[in-house]
Parts: sequence; structure tokens; C-alpha cells
Amino acid sequence: MTKQRIAVIGGTGPQGKGLGYRFARHGHDVIIGSRSAERAEPVADEVAARLEGLSGAGEVSGAANVDACGQADVVLLAVPYDGHDELVASLPLAGKTVISCVNPLGFDKRGAYGLVVDGGEGSAAESAQRLAPEATVVGAFHNVSAVGLWSEDEFLDEDVLCVGDSDEGKQIAMDLARAVTGREGISAGKLRLARQLEPFTAVLISINRKYKAHSGVRITGLPDQD
Amino acid sequence: MTKQRIAVIGGTGPQGKGLGYRFARHGHDVIIGSRSAERAEPVADEVAARLEGLSGAGEVSGAANVDACGQADVVLLAVPYDGHDELVASLPLAGKTVISCVNPLGFDKRGAYGLVVDGGEGSAAESAQRLAPEATVVGAFHNVSAVGLWSEDEFLDEDVLCVGDSDEGKQIAMDLARAVTGREGISAGKLRLARQLEPFTAVLISINRKYKAHSGVRITGLPDQD
Repeated sequence: MTKQRIAVIGGTGPQGKGLGYRFARHGHDVIIGSRSAERAEPVADEVAARLEGLSGAGEVSGAANVDACGQADVVLLAVPYDGHDELVASLPLAGKTVISCVNPLGFDKRGAYGLVVDGGEGSAAESAQRLAPEATVVGAFHNVSAVGLWSEDEFLDEDVLCVGDSDEGKQIAMDLARAVTGREGISAGKLRLARQLEPFTAVLISINRKYKAHSGVRITGLPDQD
Repeated sequence: MTKQRIAVIGGTGPQGKGLGYRFARHGHDVIIGSRSAERAEPVADEVAARLEGLSGAGEVSGAANVDACGQADVVLLAVPYDGHDELVASLPLAGKTVISCVNPLGFDKRGAYGLVVDGGEGSAAESAQRLAPEATVVGAFHNVSAVGLWSEDEFLDEDVLCVGDSDEGKQIAMDLARAVTGREGISAGKLRLARQLEPFTAVLISINRKYKAHSGVRITGLPDQD
């Protein structure tokens, strides 16, 4: 495993905090980012406390989002879609591998649904790439359950689907997936397919509501992955 | 199991033929539809030949699309998206349960991708409902592998995700899923979420190309389904 230094932007939300916990649990160093270091540090302490006594865990710290990016090689965008573009534009992402798990979703009386991004020809991940042209943007971790991430289970019975235009960037996300599922993430196509992965979360939310469950996705029919 | 009489529109294509085979194999009567009865009948014979000697199989016949609808309670739309709207508008669907597994996909040098329907606020299934307002339209069976359907395997290791605005209609698709997977399909939300299920097939096609596989989707984390 290549040990990474990962900034989790939006690290105080359930998805970011849960992914940060999983990455640190499996040896990566994690910087929880938030609007201010004061907001980030208590969450970093909470994650670190959960890792106490685990051998091989990485370090967890908190920082303001911009500082977190500066300290990291890999930046995980785990922010709400509302305000996403302004925030991404404000971050120093040039040269970084940027993993977006942002889900542009709406909710109304009929449940969750995917928001239309750029007239149906865009996605949060593609917006991030456009706003940070010197970063390598990958889409991954959209569909993992925040509840499962924060659980004591060693690994989640799910697959992490990874999309991107750079094979190297995608491979970094596929390797990080091991911290969540115990096996490599799945290479699922070019970055534009984030248009499909992001709103698929609305399907899982609908299933969760119907079955009172925390559902995830597995891909069947593949050769055995290690 | 409620035995259904199912017209498969586009029944000479791989998805329609495969689903017709599965439905008939598990006791439903299937009418393979095509532009003309002459085109449909050889495919019906091919499916029937594959069922020879299986006890409990349903009857398989061929008919022109319009006649197939007239003979059925359930109509499966398994047609290409190209020409979909014109074809659906020409069919006598009033009062029927109509299951759409139509995938509006495009292909270019970078692989498969989802076509934008109605500016991102529509799907083939929703178009069918608009064109046949007196039908009950459900979306299901989008993501099952045609190769798997035509195989000798008793059941496919996949889940069938079913979306619809009518619980009764959705339940019919969920019950039919048993013929494919051996268990009930998953209730995955309102019909508008067909916007997510349809283009998700582009993700599976990308995975298939990368891993030289016939991939499918399973939903994890649910209470045990029978």
C-alpha cells in the first residue's frame, strides 16, 4: 500500500468524517478540513479517539480547508453540492489528485432525486475538473453509506466505483478503496460517468427509506479481485 | 407466483429475447413482438427450442408488436432508444402494465455514456408514460446482462431495481424479477429515478470492457429477501 496524505474537504460532514476515519484506520494520514481550523480540530480529535489503540493507524489532524490542501497530495472533496463550485475555485488544487464524492441531490415529497448539472451534460466531478484544470480529478466513493463508514465493521460489503480520465489518478482512488472495502476499487470508465455515479445515490436513498436499511452497491460478474 | 402473459416489444433483440426466455422458463407465457409476425416467429421458435424438456415452462409465440400487446397484460419495452417514442406511441398500451428496460445510451471513442433525455429531466420510461398516459409504466431490468440472460445458469447473481409511481405496477415487475434472479426485485423509488437506472448501464458497459466481464449490480445491506 502506498501511504497517502489526504485532505478531506468537508471533513466535518458524515461522509467526509467517515471516509477520513477509514483512510486513517488503514494507515493513511488524514487532515480534516473545514472552514476554519477551530471547526476542524474537534472532528479530527473525534476521529483520532476512535482510532486509539489500533496499530498501524495514520495520523489525523484538523486544518482550514486551504491549509489542509497545502499539506496533502490527495484531496477528497466531500462537500455539499450547494456552494461546491465557489469552494472548489477557492482551493489550491493544482498538481493534486482530487477525488470527488460529491452528490448533487435534491429532495422533495417524492424522495431524493439527482439535480441536473449543466443541462444533463455535467457532474460535480466535471465541474471540479473545469475549476481546477491543473488538478487530476477522479470521481469515487459516492455511494458508500456514511453509517457503514462510521461503524466498527472492518470492511464494508460494497464496491467503490472509480471514474476518471487519468489512469494514474483513478488508480490512487482504487487503492484507497481498500481502506473501505478491503479490496481494490473498480475502474468504471471516464470522468463523465460521474454523471451516473453521483445521482445513483438517490436510488440508494430511496431503497434505504423503503427497506429501512443502509444499502450499498456491489458489482457482480467480475474476475476475482484481490 | 402469478402467471403473467407478457408481450416483449423488441423481443428479437438480445435483451428482449433473453428476458422472454427467462420469463417463459419460469412459467409465464411470452409473446415475442417484432415489426412483423414473420420476424418474430423464428425468434419465438428459438426460445421455445431452448425450453424443450423443461417442466413448468410457459408458452412462447411470436406476433407483430401491436398484436402482441393486444394479447398481453404486461408489456415489456425492450426496444432501442432510437425510434422509441414513435414506436411506443403506435402501441395499444392503455390499461396495461408496461415495463421499460430501455437504455438511452450513446457510444463514442471514449466509451458508452448516457444520452440526455428532456434536458436531463426525463428518461425513456417517463417518455413512455407520457406517450401512454392510460398505461402503468414501471422501469426495471435495465442493468441485467443479455449474455447472462441467455446462459444456462438457473439464476443471475444480480438484483433487478424497479422504479415506478404505482406500487401495484412496481410489484408486478418485482415479482417477474424472480424469474431472472430467484428473488424479488428491489423497490427503488419513483419512476423519475429511471433517469438514474437507464444510464447506469453505461457504467456497467465500461466495467465490462475494462475487465472483459459481464457485470451486474447487487444491492447490499438489505434485510434478507426471499
